[in-house]
Amino acid sequence: MSGCIFCRVVAGTAPSTKVYEDDVLLAFLDIRPITRGHTLVIPKTHATDLNDLEPALGARLFAFGHRLAKAVRRGDLAADGANLVINDGKAAFQTVDHVHLHVVPRRSGDKLAFARGLVMRRPYDRESAAAAIRSGLDRLAEEEEETSA
Amino acid sequence: MSGCIFCRVVAGTAPSTKVYEDDVLLAFLDIRPITRGHTLVIPKTHATDLNDLEPALGARLFAFGHRLAKAVRRGDLAADGANLVINDGKAAFQTVDHVHLHVVPRRSGDKLAFARGLVMRRPYDRESAAAAIRSGLDRLAEEEEETSA
Repeated sequence: MSGCIFCRVVAGTAPSTKVYEDDVLLAFLDIRPITRGHTLVIPKTHATDLNDLEPALGARLFAFGHRLAKAVRRGDLAADGANLVINDGKAAFQTVDHVHLHVVPRRSGDKLAFARGLVMRRPYDRESAAAAIRSGLDRLAEEEEETSA
Repeated sequence: MSGCIFCRVVAGTAPSTKVYEDDVLLAFLDIRPITRGHTLVIPKTHATDLNDLEPALGARLFAFGHRLAKAVRRGDLAADGANLVINDGKAAFQTVDHVHLHVVPRRSGDKLAFARGLVMRRPYDRESAAAAIRSGLDRLAEEEEETSA
């Protein structure tokens, strides 16, 4: 799918600020974030929508979304929660035809900033936002190691 | 968590219109639906938020959400897509402290109805909406049987 912008992000022929990558998934900052740290998680293999996505790959996608929701509460982003959203299908406001899970970090009392973000969708400093999320993933991994030790 | 309304729905001491149930999950209609067939998927075991939810149980929850997104496109609901949403944490507009995944069926051109639904959240005929979703789950299961046969 060379015409698909997210496939080009996966291929590295379109730029992105990456938060996480493994064999089947890529997570990167939304270029028009609603809040600081607004991340998209996508399968590397093209799938137009959830109807087109293998259940096993969907499981990986959602599992990482779950991890990310925990990570943004831990890292330098210091979020108090997150909105996890998949707009599945054009009818549901899906704008890029490659499945993507939004993880939108939230802070207590950020309702007005969130509303402004929905309309403005202006970028924050990407490198610092991505680093803040990665720090949360690292802390989550450390916690898990401590628990299993 | 006897004070938790969703735990009472699970226990059967609070009423609900059920769409699906298995050993660990329950899916039932939102009593204040944004669109017809707006369903909530919850773990039967209490978990306040994603931070509190076992990854394995989260995997089951999301996997069923994925199935439901496919089911609403197939059944009598004849949806063209769906919004899948977890508002994780009070900061992210979570209103019931028991993890729940919203699956909001969408139709092409329903933007105004969706906007009205967001504000009004008036119930549709619950039994017919639930039956329409169950028909989609049945058709999905039939398709899968045909594919594996």
